[in-house]
Amino acid sequence: MSRFWSPVVHDLTPYVPGEQPRISQLVKLNTNENPYPPSPRVQAAIAAANVDSLRLYPDPESSALRASIAGYYGVAAEQVFVGNGSDEVLALVFQALLQHEAPLLFPDISYSFYPVYCKLYGIAYRTVPLDADFAIDPASYQQPCGGIIFPNPNAPTGRLLSRAAIEAMLQQHPDTVVVVDEAYVDFGGDSMIPLVAQYPNLLVVQTLSKSRSLAGLRVGLAVGNAELIAGLTRVKNSFNSYPLDRLAQAGAQAAFEDDAYFQVCRERVIASREALVAGLAALGFAVLPSAANFVFARHPAHDAARLAACLRQRNIIVRHFQQPRIEQFLRISIGTAAECQLLLSALADILADGATA
Amino acid sequence: MSRFWSPVVHDLTPYVPGEQPRISQLVKLNTNENPYPPSPRVQAAIAAANVDSLRLYPDPESSALRASIAGYYGVAAEQVFVGNGSDEVLALVFQALLQHEAPLLFPDISYSFYPVYCKLYGIAYRTVPLDADFAIDPASYQQPCGGIIFPNPNAPTGRLLSRAAIEAMLQQHPDTVVVVDEAYVDFGGDSMIPLVAQYPNLLVVQTLSKSRSLAGLRVGLAVGNAELIAGLTRVKNSFNSYPLDRLAQAGAQAAFEDDAYFQVCRERVIASREALVAGLAALGFAVLPSAANFVFARHPAHDAARLAACLRQRNIIVRHFQQPRIEQFLRISIGTAAECQLLLSALADILADGATA
Repeated sequence: MSRFWSPVVHDLTPYVPGEQPRISQLVKLNTNENPYPPSPRVQAAIAAANVDSLRLYPDPESSALRASIAGYYGVAAEQVFVGNGSDEVLALVFQALLQHEAPLLFPDISYSFYPVYCKLYGIAYRTVPLDADFAIDPASYQQPCGGIIFPNPNAPTGRLLSRAAIEAMLQQHPDTVVVVDEAYVDFGGDSMIPLVAQYPNLLVVQTLSKSRSLAGLRVGLAVGNAELIAGLTRVKNSFNSYPLDRLAQAGAQAAFEDDAYFQVCRERVIASREALVAGLAALGFAVLPSAANFVFARHPAHDAARLAACLRQRNIIVRHFQQPRIEQFLRISIGTAAECQLLLSALADILADGATA
Repeated sequence: MSRFWSPVVHDLTPYVPGEQPRISQLVKLNTNENPYPPSPRVQAAIAAANVDSLRLYPDPESSALRASIAGYYGVAAEQVFVGNGSDEVLALVFQALLQHEAPLLFPDISYSFYPVYCKLYGIAYRTVPLDADFAIDPASYQQPCGGIIFPNPNAPTGRLLSRAAIEAMLQQHPDTVVVVDEAYVDFGGDSMIPLVAQYPNLLVVQTLSKSRSLAGLRVGLAVGNAELIAGLTRVKNSFNSYPLDRLAQAGAQAAFEDDAYFQVCRERVIASREALVAGLAALGFAVLPSAANFVFARHPAHDAARLAACLRQRNIIVRHFQQPRIEQFLRISIGTAAECQLLLSALADILADGATA
């Protein structure tokens, strides 16, 4: 606390990202990164970038990148917004589109950055409980609100909500922005972007951090009606005119232009996930159905915090949330097939030790 | 306007950055970019970056970069904050440190992003007129306030305020944050960073966009008491955990580690500025004393808007602000010696045409 801080700072409880340890030789399954490198075209685009041109400002509109994304999804460039990672995009969405008198709704178990944004921007919110199976229940969102946001698939559960359920929500709230945060959608769901043409209240947020293997380049995007994008752009241009540097614009565009690579990578991750789910089930874990590049699993006979600590001793890190309803779950990112196998072997050892302890 | 926007969006008047034209063969003297490329070490750092590692999140704390900056300025890493360009750093400063009940003070003629940030965050402000010579008058800041911010040298005037004057302001306002925005300081002033040890209310903001030739990489920084930096960090971690991508962190660090190149470049720019000032004076321009990589000049007999338009026809772009008190000035960035010469020749032609018109 400091007398120099703005009052809002005192009440903040900042988001805590998953650990980014600097030691190597670690099996890092804690922050949902892609186990595969970005497309070789990203490598080529960055190698081809003219470093001398870094003396000049980047295109403040990221026009070439937005045109590529628009082409990829069959929308107009005016329907595409890009930012410095989807966390920045989400922050601008909260400020530009979700700050209304009625409370914002989001699931009680969801991306833990949402309540942080609300605190930062003074947005009233109400959390809506997931059902007993940890699924979003669309009926529970039938209440007056200033906006709705949820990840699809949800994080950290991995569960997917159907297109029909999302359409029902959009129709029930025609005057309210509904944000579908599709950070993980490429690993098992259909994007709602095609619905943007029908629903002016729909905004879809995506990231290049997961399915495009570019967490280190910081690029996120939003697609929606041009009116929503214009609101976001007004806030962006009142905050930072140039959020994406020249290399990030070039690298992100190259990633979107290599669809074949993208398809291969995501299929590999999906295949690894299915194998991991089977392996975990064989060890007695209950695993929620996942459409993401992680699984959410608990063991009926073993404490999750202890399992995470034991894995850590074996240089394997996964994510554990000390939070009501989910404190017995582990969130495990999908690594390479070899990493998944290491995890399963380690868990088998730990469970055997625990059984004899 | 849209029913979907948050109320704050309706009232925004976003910042308008200088034009970033896509046509080449232009003498671009409108956005204060450095005419020289970044250090060869930046090129090497980016070439050496492991693009495969872009699949992983960057260091959210930018620890290596902050350590380099701290070493360069002889402060502790806890006294250094970095962000996605100094515009982002400034936005976070406004939100974290300048949002108080009493109004924020800044010069009436200054960086035009300041009132935009105030609108975005609902910060009351009062502008303090520059004196008749377009200098900041420290005495005029002796009034109750919630914070003070000014660029030093000021933009777009280029005028420098002395260390003694700044110390007097810091002493007059011991309970108020005083932000010195040193975007241009390397071209003719002394940084106030050494004063940070004495004044817990001093925050210095800098950018790598100008003197380090990295406008296209988007890196800015702030140095101050650890308490101020902690406030900034809390807001940053409630907004975007990872504001600097891996390439930006590596490139910025390389730039700070090549002091010899930095010194050569800034001396070249200063020499070009002095030659340009002499050339403009010879054409009859009145030029404010500049400590920046631009000059602010007016001609007693020629309308500034017309001069800017005529230069534009000759593929030379400079910045003209349609704003009270300064609408007869041109802000001209310092280009290479050859670019400055082209500008002077073009102006000589235009003035001759105007005289015969």
